[in-house]
Amino acid sequence: MFNDETIETFLNQIAFNADGLVPVIAQRHDNNEVLMMAWMNRESFIQTMQSKQMTYWSRSRQKLWRKGETSGHTQTLKEMLYDCDGDTLLAKVEQTGPACHTGAPNCFFQTFS
Amino acid sequence: MFNDETIETFLNQIAFNADGLVPVIAQRHDNNEVLMMAWMNRESFIQTMQSKQMTYWSRSRQKLWRKGETSGHTQTLKEMLYDCDGDTLLAKVEQTGPACHTGAPNCFFQTFS
Repeated sequence: MFNDETIETFLNQIAFNADGLVPVIAQRHDNNEVLMMAWMNRESFIQTMQSKQMTYWSRSRQKLWRKGETSGHTQTLKEMLYDCDGDTLLAKVEQTGPACHTGAPNCFFQTFS
Repeated sequence: MFNDETIETFLNQIAFNADGLVPVIAQRHDNNEVLMMAWMNRESFIQTMQSKQMTYWSRSRQKLWRKGETSGHTQTLKEMLYDCDGDTLLAKVEQTGPACHTGAPNCFFQTFS
């Protein structure tokens, strides 16, 4: 577990946007499948790092959203990475059930062709 | 190749944000490695679909940016997917050389630990 001071140093590495948000790519840790993209604010990052349960900021509902809180399709954090600019996170997760609210395994089931 | 009419129908599936941009996750098509996340506007999407060369919108430089135009580290599009909300794209690409401007194979080489 990370203590508050450690999480604060992590937060200082993140370039949150003007809305205080950072995009997070969730990827299955075992086969590298990209599951979804969502957003975190400071509080959702803190809760995620403390609980290891992926917790996003819902822009439509304007509230914290612990993935799977209603569906049971939780995401357990295995590793949190950040990019060269610090403005995008990549979360390697263990996914329970389908990641997409449509019931699809991941949200990227549509192709332009 | 896609004609203009087809690309127009694709554009209508995309939920661009208030700035006219959509985030794009670039993933290696052969091993599912996530390489980077960048942004596209309508014109960069059109050029990408026409040329198969990943072309982003640089928010810092406020101009179109064909990946690899200076470095030679191009990304050739293999498949363009979009998510359930239409507000994120996932591009499966063939990457030439390192994807990151730092010389790293991908931009996510830093971890919170």
